[in-house]
This record gives sequence, structure tokens and C-alpha cells, in this order.
Amino acid sequence: MTQYEGIFDNLVQELRRGSLVLFVLIRLESRQYGYSLLQSLADQGIAIEAGTLYPLMRRLEKQGLLDSEWEVEEGRPRKYYTISQNGQAILQRLKAEWKTLSSQIDTLLADSNNR
Amino acid sequence: MTQYEGIFDNLVQELRRGSLVLFVLIRLESRQYGYSLLQSLADQGIAIEAGTLYPLMRRLEKQGLLDSEWEVEEGRPRKYYTISQNGQAILQRLKAEWKTLSSQIDTLLADSNNR
Repeated sequence: MTQYEGIFDNLVQELRRGSLVLFVLIRLESRQYGYSLLQSLADQGIAIEAGTLYPLMRRLEKQGLLDSEWEVEEGRPRKYYTISQNGQAILQRLKAEWKTLSSQIDTLLADSNNR
Repeated sequence: MTQYEGIFDNLVQELRRGSLVLFVLIRLESRQYGYSLLQSLADQGIAIEAGTLYPLMRRLEKQGLLDSEWEVEEGRPRKYYTISQNGQAILQRLKAEWKTLSSQIDTLLADSNNR
């Protein structure tokens, strides 16, 4: 099975990648800076690298789904993010999509396990 | 909201893309050719384009997760696919990953809806 580890890891990454935006938008209903978001995801068992998360946050801000503001704390500037009003509207629709997707997968899994 | 339609569509695509392999591997526990798989997914409300599905099936075959054989039917050759033994092993692990992921998202959603 060892030659399949790389393939498996890639498939898992693919599976998780699409959900990241959902994680980020939901978490940013509370105001957070990059590192605190990274930590709060890690605390929930969602391992994501800074090199993936930070560019995603910048992209979402550029797309207007996040608002941000700088604050100086402990002598250095920190950029705080929160979900924007448009981000909230999109999040509500993404949640509905997630529900559809997850029930489609659960139906397939039930078929598969009954076979 | 209209300027956000494109952004929303991309996010939904991202969300669904990672699950495609799961759909395909589970469906190919029964032997199918490309078009019959496309139809059986569409019947379940999973819209996927031939231009996405067929390359994915070829990739999975190349990776050893699918077996295939040609048959001549109605006067033309058809390539039938089924999940391979290694594909089954990977599918079992992907199902477990899916369960973890979906419970992480459901936990986040519950937090979000209680706020």
C-alpha cells in the first residue's frame, strides 16, 4: 500500500481544500488576525498551513468577502479580519450548498455500505 | 449581489471538486462506462461535465485505483471501469476522512447558527 500513500494524501488534500473557505468564513464571524485564526482552526483539529491560509484570506478580502483593519498591539501592527456583509450573504448560500453536497455523499455512502 | 455571482459559483465549484473522486470511486463499485457513470451521477443531482469526469477517470486508472476493459457493444467499443483492489483500500480511508471532515464542518455550522 505504501506506493499509494502519496495518491491518498493528494486525494485527502483535494477533499479538504474546497471546504477551507467555509471554515474561514464561519470562523471570521468573530474578528481574528491570521495567526489567531490558524490557532483556532488547529484547536478544532483542522490543520492548515500559514502558506495556504494567509493567501486565502487576502484573496477573500480582495473579493470583498472579508473586511480588515490594522491595529497596533504589543508594539506591532496586526491585521484583523471579519466577514463582510457580502461575505455573510455568500456564506449563507455556501452553507446551503454544503448541506446538499453532504447529503448527496451520505446517500452514496449508505448505498455503498449496503452493497 | 450580482457582481458576486461569479465568486459564489467558483466557491461552490471548489467545494464540490474535492468530493468528485469520492463519488466516482463509490459509483464504480459497480462496473460502468464513462457515459453511464455521468448519467447515474446526474440522476442523483450531481451535475458534472464530461470534460471533467472523463479525464478524472483516466487519471484514476493510471494511478491504479480503477481497472478497465474494452467491450464491443452495439457495434462500437466501450471502455468499462470498475474500482480496483487498491482503489477499494483507498476508498475505505477516504470515507473515514470524509466523516471527519463533515463532522468538523457540522460542528462549525452549529456554532455559527447559535451565534
